[in-house]
Amino acid sequence: MFNFKIKHQDKKSLARTGIITTPHGQIHTPAFIPVATQATVKSLTPQQINEIGFDAILSNTYHLYLRPGPDTVKKLGGLQKFMAWNKPVFTDSGGFQVMSLNKGLCTINDDCVEFKSHIDASKHIFTPEKSMQIQRKLGADIIFAFDQCLAITADEETTTKSLARTHSWEERSLKEFTKLNKNKSQALYGIVQGGRFKKLREESAKFVASLPFDGIGIGSIFGDPKEESRTLVAHAIKFLPENKPKHLLGIGAVEDLFTYVELGLDTFDCVLPTRLARVGYVFIGPESGGKLKNKYRYRVANEKFKDDIKPLDSHCECYVCKNFSRAYIRHLYKAEELLFYTLMTYHNLYFFHRLMKEIRTSIENDEFLKLKKKWMK
Amino acid sequence: MFNFKIKHQDKKSLARTGIITTPHGQIHTPAFIPVATQATVKSLTPQQINEIGFDAILSNTYHLYLRPGPDTVKKLGGLQKFMAWNKPVFTDSGGFQVMSLNKGLCTINDDCVEFKSHIDASKHIFTPEKSMQIQRKLGADIIFAFDQCLAITADEETTTKSLARTHSWEERSLKEFTKLNKNKSQALYGIVQGGRFKKLREESAKFVASLPFDGIGIGSIFGDPKEESRTLVAHAIKFLPENKPKHLLGIGAVEDLFTYVELGLDTFDCVLPTRLARVGYVFIGPESGGKLKNKYRYRVANEKFKDDIKPLDSHCECYVCKNFSRAYIRHLYKAEELLFYTLMTYHNLYFFHRLMKEIRTSIENDEFLKLKKKWMK
Repeated sequence: MFNFKIKHQDKKSLARTGIITTPHGQIHTPAFIPVATQATVKSLTPQQINEIGFDAILSNTYHLYLRPGPDTVKKLGGLQKFMAWNKPVFTDSGGFQVMSLNKGLCTINDDCVEFKSHIDASKHIFTPEKSMQIQRKLGADIIFAFDQCLAITADEETTTKSLARTHSWEERSLKEFTKLNKNKSQALYGIVQGGRFKKLREESAKFVASLPFDGIGIGSIFGDPKEESRTLVAHAIKFLPENKPKHLLGIGAVEDLFTYVELGLDTFDCVLPTRLARVGYVFIGPESGGKLKNKYRYRVANEKFKDDIKPLDSHCECYVCKNFSRAYIRHLYKAEELLFYTLMTYHNLYFFHRLMKEIRTSIENDEFLKLKKKWMK
Repeated sequence: MFNFKIKHQDKKSLARTGIITTPHGQIHTPAFIPVATQATVKSLTPQQINEIGFDAILSNTYHLYLRPGPDTVKKLGGLQKFMAWNKPVFTDSGGFQVMSLNKGLCTINDDCVEFKSHIDASKHIFTPEKSMQIQRKLGADIIFAFDQCLAITADEETTTKSLARTHSWEERSLKEFTKLNKNKSQALYGIVQGGRFKKLREESAKFVASLPFDGIGIGSIFGDPKEESRTLVAHAIKFLPENKPKHLLGIGAVEDLFTYVELGLDTFDCVLPTRLARVGYVFIGPESGGKLKNKYRYRVANEKFKDDIKPLDSHCECYVCKNFSRAYIRHLYKAEELLFYTLMTYHNLYFFHRLMKEIRTSIENDEFLKLKKKWMK
């Protein structure tokens, strides 16, 4: 049911295009995967996400476990049916949120993580087995092994210990997954950890590569500091099998997408375009003045757009840019109207979709580095 | 540019179907007009409102005057272009909001109303002339004369005085409108007032009927008490010309729509379906258990819908009911997701659109009273 085919390998870099096939359809890579934390991409209907053109979305196991609960999602036919998104879905393992949303409120030992719900402070326990069972019930096409996510500042000793635990959890994840996935309806990705240490990243990459995962995620890369992050991923990648799809967890700044596509990463998820949309940041490409220095975005709330009849981005072909002015969208912001979130999210996601499409075309034409240069000004 | 044609007069009541033609298209009556207070039907794109099937929307002059301001809307090409709704638009006169949102904060004399902005407490003055000038800049197809709205509890003396003022304001509105509307791009509706007093309602109806308005609104009917409201409108209607389109301002409960369509009203605007959507009330028809007693609605937040795979309304053909379960929509409510507002508003507006369509068909078949009976259980 699951496979990955490399379509074209760029001649001048590790960038490649490919197709991930899942029970709910194909994902054209490199792809940006919008985040649907609570089984909804905030403010958009699945019809709109489909209209933009996305192949897949990613939901968060931690959130859906707490609310509405995996049994409810299962009863309702799994995530796709639940949210009326009849295309591929990823879920993460819950590991990242358990720890990031519960700083100081979760206790970890080699067996499990105990944490308190951020909703009602009720106590819960996650184990690798439980993460697999939950993700099974949620029914995503691509799921992730349960890992421990560390702060980027963790020292070598802490990271070494944590990595051993993560590796043991990944083996347990794989074992439980194999038991549950007899019908092959899901694919499991292992995760490379190892913090800030090249040696540990290498060790982790080799370990994950040695196990029969369907794909590989790279975790705890926070994008900053940029050069250090790049070096760590570039090093780990060397020890990963070329023919497995690779996902970079939580990364999605424009410049990062170029950096990591160049290293051969295939899929990316990130809340950046949707979260920034909701506070008024509009993404724009180089032809509209988007550049590294302004992070490819501007704020539409600015007074100077009060009477501006131009669209958010004059070079964008999306529904929002074809129909609405900056003045109107600024008005919605000022008037605290719900439609503001919808229009902004739509445009920003369209921007990321279009960017990935441009990237895929450039790879197929062996011009990825040329495109990167155009954008990295 | 503007005209109204009666298509079919019901044989057993005053109900009729008709077509209002405006520069931006036709409105099939009787029609429900969704409210787009700040130039947006809360949480929906104009594409979605169009998909539901509505012919027209109504915006509020008071709100748009304060934000973004009539000059901005005019610069951006008028309301239709501003909000990307290329179909008929109504605006009210601002009179109702000036008084209802500024209780105790506005002072009225025969010349004008002075009020404080509910946004920043800045001082403003509305006159009939100013209301016309603002509505001219906003550029709606159908606009309303400036009137004074009273509390339903106002006594006869107060109402009599207020009515004289309203009538003088309506004459001033008409005079200013005629000056501004040389190109006939807009139509002006007069408004019948007169509070709780049949005699005054009659006087007002006769007065408004004597002036060359394009259509007639009936104001300050709050729907309650039901029988008193009905009696007042039924009485006023007798003195209004049959061939002018009639709008009932702010009314839209299901039972009220039946009551007032039966009396010959043609259009209705009301925030009920959209406002109730946002707090979780789902409208349903008689085939799904909707009746007078439950006000044709239920709350989807109810615990019992936690795992309910059924749509909001099994007999509804809307996008929401064809794709989502009660359990999913309840989940969005619990998780405080923006998509909740969109899906609920979509369904409720679809319900009102479908209801009016059924009403129009029943009139054309001379079966309006039969349909009313089916619903009024």
